[in-house]
Amino acid sequence: MEKTVEAIILVTCPDQRGIVARLASALHETSGNILDAAQYTSDSTNTFLQRIHVSWEDKKVSHASVQRALNPLIEELQLDVHIRFGNTPHKVAVFVSEEDHCLHDLLLLRRDRALRCDIALIISNHPDLSSIAEQHGIPFHHIPVNKSCDNDTEQRQIKLLEEHDINLIVLARYMRILSAEFTQRYAGKIINIHHSFLPAFAGGKPYHQAHAKGVKLIGATAHYATAELDEGPIIEQSVIRISHKDEVTDMVRKGRDNERTVLARAVRWHLEDRIIIHENRAIVFE
Amino acid sequence: MEKTVEAIILVTCPDQRGIVARLASALHETSGNILDAAQYTSDSTNTFLQRIHVSWEDKKVSHASVQRALNPLIEELQLDVHIRFGNTPHKVAVFVSEEDHCLHDLLLLRRDRALRCDIALIISNHPDLSSIAEQHGIPFHHIPVNKSCDNDTEQRQIKLLEEHDINLIVLARYMRILSAEFTQRYAGKIINIHHSFLPAFAGGKPYHQAHAKGVKLIGATAHYATAELDEGPIIEQSVIRISHKDEVTDMVRKGRDNERTVLARAVRWHLEDRIIIHENRAIVFE
Amino acid sequence: MEKTVEAIILVTCPDQRGIVARLASALHETSGNILDAAQYTSDSTNTFLQRIHVSWEDKKVSHASVQRALNPLIEELQLDVHIRFGNTPHKVAVFVSEEDHCLHDLLLLRRDRALRCDIALIISNHPDLSSIAEQHGIPFHHIPVNKSCDNDTEQRQIKLLEEHDINLIVLARYMRILSAEFTQRYAGKIINIHHSFLPAFAGGKPYHQAHAKGVKLIGATAHYATAELDEGPIIEQSVIRISHKDEVTDMVRKGRDNERTVLARAVRWHLEDRIIIHENRAIVFE
Amino acid sequence: MEKTVEAIILVTCPDQRGIVARLASALHETSGNILDAAQYTSDSTNTFLQRIHVSWEDKKVSHASVQRALNPLIEELQLDVHIRFGNTPHKVAVFVSEEDHCLHDLLLLRRDRALRCDIALIISNHPDLSSIAEQHGIPFHHIPVNKSCDNDTEQRQIKLLEEHDINLIVLARYMRILSAEFTQRYAGKIINIHHSFLPAFAGGKPYHQAHAKGVKLIGATAHYATAELDEGPIIEQSVIRISHKDEVTDMVRKGRDNERTVLARAVRWHLEDRIIIHENRAIVFE
Repeated sequence: MEKTVEAIILVTCPDQRGIVARLASALHETSGNILDAAQYTSDSTNTFLQRIHVSWEDKKVSHASVQRALNPLIEELQLDVHIRFGNTPHKVAVFVSEEDHCLHDLLLLRRDRALRCDIALIISNHPDLSSIAEQHGIPFHHIPVNKSCDNDTEQRQIKLLEEHDINLIVLARYMRILSAEFTQRYAGKIINIHHSFLPAFAGGKPYHQAHAKGVKLIGATAHYATAELDEGPIIEQSVIRISHKDEVTDMVRKGRDNERTVLARAVRWHLEDRIIIHENRAIVFE
Repeated sequence: MEKTVEAIILVTCPDQRGIVARLASALHETSGNILDAAQYTSDSTNTFLQRIHVSWEDKKVSHASVQRALNPLIEELQLDVHIRFGNTPHKVAVFVSEEDHCLHDLLLLRRDRALRCDIALIISNHPDLSSIAEQHGIPFHHIPVNKSCDNDTEQRQIKLLEEHDINLIVLARYMRILSAEFTQRYAGKIINIHHSFLPAFAGGKPYHQAHAKGVKLIGATAHYATAELDEGPIIEQSVIRISHKDEVTDMVRKGRDNERTVLARAVRWHLEDRIIIHENRAIVFE
Repeated sequence: MEKTVEAIILVTCPDQRGIVARLASALHETSGNILDAAQYTSDSTNTFLQRIHVSWEDKKVSHASVQRALNPLIEELQLDVHIRFGNTPHKVAVFVSEEDHCLHDLLLLRRDRALRCDIALIISNHPDLSSIAEQHGIPFHHIPVNKSCDNDTEQRQIKLLEEHDINLIVLARYMRILSAEFTQRYAGKIINIHHSFLPAFAGGKPYHQAHAKGVKLIGATAHYATAELDEGPIIEQSVIRISHKDEVTDMVRKGRDNERTVLARAVRWHLEDRIIIHENRAIVFE
Repeated sequence: MEKTVEAIILVTCPDQRGIVARLASALHETSGNILDAAQYTSDSTNTFLQRIHVSWEDKKVSHASVQRALNPLIEELQLDVHIRFGNTPHKVAVFVSEEDHCLHDLLLLRRDRALRCDIALIISNHPDLSSIAEQHGIPFHHIPVNKSCDNDTEQRQIKLLEEHDINLIVLARYMRILSAEFTQRYAGKIINIHHSFLPAFAGGKPYHQAHAKGVKLIGATAHYATAELDEGPIIEQSVIRISHKDEVTDMVRKGRDNERTVLARAVRWHLEDRIIIHENRAIVFE
């Protein structure tokens, strides 16, 4: 039986009348059927953003043919278009240190196809988690990091990332800071999990900070990494309730569930092309 | 300065290829600009549902002219279409008994224009809440109800509803059961708040039931009222945490916040035409 | 029929062996029955804190007689003891500005005896909310505030507070800053609601700050007011989910429910003597 | 360096004046120091319940000596007392079928000492999860179950449980029903996770039931297993938000996090002797 070809199209352009209809028509002319469409208009920047999920019965449709069909609009409406066909999964590298709860979760979700991607390699500044990688049959690279932002180290990392054609890096409780060069090279392609409700408690030891402050909720934030530490576009956040009885070790324990859930959700949305970064905000078409 | 005219269009039809594009084109031809569109396809019933928010700069556009523009599609694609223009607010009747927390909330939200509607009258089987109605300048009708589903009583209620052209009835902790005839007459136009997480604890005294069962969360459910008690399409639900220490009176107290919030959210979605009822489910385009 | 006399006793002292047993024995000797007891030991400060709910069948028991019974322990164990008998409700002043959602909630909760206190007066820097005060039969004092921390204005406020013997001030969206002198005078007796998840977005316009940052949750924090703005001991916090679609006005609307609920909870705990402030943290015996 | 000996004492008895003080005194006389105490009085059954955490510096204290010290009270006050010393961890058996998310979580939590117990064996009606058991060095027993409640099968299970002196059985998504004899034999010692917000959607395929009903939240419930399926005392519950877009497979995926978190929390409370079952309710001293 013949199956369909599917793609996700992400569009950003100056807001103007008629965009939705004209995009829909252009895709209709390629014989594409719009399975889902979601849009958002930023009033402050006067920008239109849309995610369109299209299918074609004709399997000969291609990235190039869709691109060609949209070209007149791209020029006329100043569209910034990103097209990804369903049969080309993201290639992912996971960076870890010693904590394994996020890594475990990502690997199990991928195994169960709740995350559809190819986890091509795991890079760590510690050797500890190599056996988990092995259990899942994923190459593990131990690259010690003496000091954060070290150029030689990052060159070794980048070499591996390029060899594997990586287009998403997940920092799954990776405890080293990446250089501005690194984050810019992979702008919009690095997702970090920070164990606080950002912007509260950025930087080191957020649970210690939360304990000192006496807050009643602790959080986790998944965000794109940028040159400024813990300042990149926020993708997802969640909090859990604590009390004065909870010491830092209790927070660490209770927070784990929250961290891995928030990270997994953010990674999932990225893999499904549900996110457009616009003016340092992550617009998520859930 | 010229302002625009806006409308919400709700569409239900058998799923088929090209609907999105054809609807968008038809609206484009009326000079309508699609401000927002959200869709859902039910695979089990093979049905397409869409909510479209359209604006026109030409203020001469009308319900009739839009209807005309869609007519060819309505026939060809078997569309079920509901169009409402922004300048015709819903006319609402609120039914209450003795508890006032939900009523207070609805009145304050309307005052602050967080609920955009015309609350035309309040009907109660008790005289207690008349002074609140008075404070807000809304007619209050005390219609005693000796037994639920009483025909004479309901005829008096219906007479009032018709006189005021009511198209939404909100049961804000109204403690009488409406007859099947009544609920059918206003099918999809009666929103009830039930103080449990339905389908658990339907019927009377849900907090007593929850206490007897020893649950750790208590809920509230806003749903459309149908002939079967507490069985209509669920619009919104939320729960709050309790413990073994909470007696029924504590649940009553803690539950109030939850009830009013859930009800207000459901009413808001209805007023903004965000809900399509499909096969006893409320599809909410949030 | 004879009813019992009840009291709440709050104890703070250096941690040492046998405190619980010795306090229980001392109270037992006054013929007191311990209805509830909850304790917490701060390891970092080596401090023991306890809340004891006691009842006596003998109605002749008094603050003085209980104090006398505890005196030997107070000296020996260096107890800091606070005793409040159930028949002496807190006297409360509510400070407001223009927003009324928190005030409404407090007044309704008091009416329903969900908050057991005597709301003796309402003070506002705006005249707007006087009619609400009138509906509930509570004196309303309009004291304009030209600039925050103005000494003359605060003297007028303090005069009223003293005349009414106020021992709790609730800042229910009061938009003026109190002076260090004022907050010190009423240390541990002023509860403020701030519409953010502190310490994030302290200071003015927290929803604007939240919108600019692109967070996915917005919060509310009830805390004791101290000389440092938005830095006092946190009593309660809660968050609600938002999305990129929510503009500041949507946050304001959605946040209201959260603010009033968080504030009411904090006030309730204070009125029930469930809170001990210890080292700038609010220990809440829920 | 000398360390202390600790124990948890759970007490149930008819409510009467002076219990707290007399228990505290009796323990004080054993040189025990009360580290924490929490109590609850059920008004409907007139029953007093307390959890007391005691430490002794004298390491010669024993179960027998504490029991002896309490004996006079046990008789006089009709105490039902349960004492467990900290140095005797629970012995746990985990029952599983094919789903592994709960098992993984329990094993990782035990490894990180967030669950303090000895997981002595894993019993499954499927061979699939043996490799996980192996990775953690825990004996795995594949006992096929042709039909639920089969006597021969249960005898094999019981034999293993007795050989290992098991005092807690965790049903971590075990998909077979246990007989009334089995659940009575291990009354109060079997914790099950059901993937719904009980009492809604008891029995098979709860996510299918939830989907058919169109609820807006899905839940998970950890409860003690009794002879009546899904009717035992509820220990913990939690819900997560879904929408009309979520098909049953989405619920399965989203629900996993919730199930494992709820189960782990319930198991933890049981292992820390925080639960007293009273009249088919689980009183949890959090």
